[in-house]
Amino acid sequence: MADDRNLPATTAAVPILRRRADLRIWIAGWHRAGETVGLVPTMGALHDGHMALVSAARARADRVIVTLFVNPKQFNSAADLAAYPRTEEADAALLAPYEVDLLYAPAGEEMYPPGFDTTVSVAGIGTGLCDLYRPGHFDGVATVVTKLLTQTRADLAFFGEKDFQQLILVRRLARDLDLGVEIVGCPTLREADGVALSSRNSRLSPADRRRAAILPETLSAAVAALAAGETAANVLDEARARLLAGGVERLEYLELRRERDLEPLAAATEPARLLVAAWFGGVRLIDNMPVIAALR
Amino acid sequence: MADDRNLPATTAAVPILRRRADLRIWIAGWHRAGETVGLVPTMGALHDGHMALVSAARARADRVIVTLFVNPKQFNSAADLAAYPRTEEADAALLAPYEVDLLYAPAGEEMYPPGFDTTVSVAGIGTGLCDLYRPGHFDGVATVVTKLLTQTRADLAFFGEKDFQQLILVRRLARDLDLGVEIVGCPTLREADGVALSSRNSRLSPADRRRAAILPETLSAAVAALAAGETAANVLDEARARLLAGGVERLEYLELRRERDLEPLAAATEPARLLVAAWFGGVRLIDNMPVIAALR
Repeated sequence: MADDRNLPATTAAVPILRRRADLRIWIAGWHRAGETVGLVPTMGALHDGHMALVSAARARADRVIVTLFVNPKQFNSAADLAAYPRTEEADAALLAPYEVDLLYAPAGEEMYPPGFDTTVSVAGIGTGLCDLYRPGHFDGVATVVTKLLTQTRADLAFFGEKDFQQLILVRRLARDLDLGVEIVGCPTLREADGVALSSRNSRLSPADRRRAAILPETLSAAVAALAAGETAANVLDEARARLLAGGVERLEYLELRRERDLEPLAAATEPARLLVAAWFGGVRLIDNMPVIAALR
Repeated sequence: MADDRNLPATTAAVPILRRRADLRIWIAGWHRAGETVGLVPTMGALHDGHMALVSAARARADRVIVTLFVNPKQFNSAADLAAYPRTEEADAALLAPYEVDLLYAPAGEEMYPPGFDTTVSVAGIGTGLCDLYRPGHFDGVATVVTKLLTQTRADLAFFGEKDFQQLILVRRLARDLDLGVEIVGCPTLREADGVALSSRNSRLSPADRRRAAILPETLSAAVAALAAGETAANVLDEARARLLAGGVERLEYLELRRERDLEPLAAATEPARLLVAAWFGGVRLIDNMPVIAALR
């Protein structure tokens, strides 16, 4: 069914809303009619990974909203924020075949009006891993996602497993704040050489793009060893050495964590994730893979 | 109209719900029928001040929910939490004549299930004044109020001006987090001697209860001087001396703030509030009054 829907059905432009008040009116009408609303929050610069989220939303929800908002609160540096690609027209064109019901692309002041002063933070899941290297990043994510969920009153929201810490954090805050939404995680899409799709890949030099394949290669090998019962300490030491020998400029972390709450694990004794963050030529990439221990 | 509704119309018990899931079902039915929902969040130990909030809700909303939840996250000490009165049966009996549609009295673990890890905080309004003396208090308030608003999806919520910093903070977070609710502030109710109604008054000794009248007396006199154009520095020095001479055991603060965002003011050049926190015999009382400057 998802295949049928992915075929270009129409070339009509998707309506673009920029104001919360308009969004509320459209969505209230859908909810009154008993229709479910699926949200795909993005920062634009859409690629096939986003399209997989849109297809998942299309398959599960009556109405699909894609948001395009480059959230300043989740960037750690003005340079990174400025460098983030903004391609609204191309994004809208890419979405045209997917039967998206509306695009929501608010301006900064619509999301953060003068005097904006509220922060949502998630203590345990929002600390460690990426947080150590991007302080404040997850407060920015938690705050904007809370706002997008309350603005849309979405019944379902779709996030990629690529940003795994973000996915688990969003699932926790949606439960903790009683947002009445199901958070759906979607598997990471990969290039032929295994590199996870990311808007940041376009910033890699061709040589660094080739080198980046060391990330999924190393993760796959380590996942196999962990699933076979080897302890994390040994497997991760070897994997770190392999990454650094394979062209990683700087390795931020490579860690084994429990899948459901990202608590550190010494071995894959329960459903787990192996997560990595590494730099290639001035570009920071993250990736992760599930570790499902064989019954022993 | 409010008077009619305040007459005992029925002695039937108000339904009490304890689970979010049940609450959602009731409220979804009301919203489907196009009815508006008014929320009166309380920590129980109800008095006439709460009943004024209920009457205001009854006058503005089709359905009225009163919540009874002593929120552990907003207490600074275990002793203060333990000492807080819990009188659910008496509260339910008091509410019976008010045509409340339901009482929501969740247990602690229903509001904060295992692994609860999310905090809502409001930076500017949630700092200074009470926050200096009750660190973390407003994070606890902001988090529980966000949850009560998302759980109920209330269209209107009613808060007393007695807790003025809380009222302004809730108004800000409801706007910032797009909760789609109107926050309605209701004037403080007072005893014959001017003392603001508060659940804490019952913990005062008879002598301290008499002494507490110095709070509204001093506020009234200072408000008159400020409204007449005197500068805050002079007026507040005099008022502080009067409070300490009048039996205040410890004065935490007495400050003039801008009404809408609680920014400090040197004079009542725009709509302002005079706010005080003071201790009498081991009990902390707060109060405040509006300062509306005469045109000069």
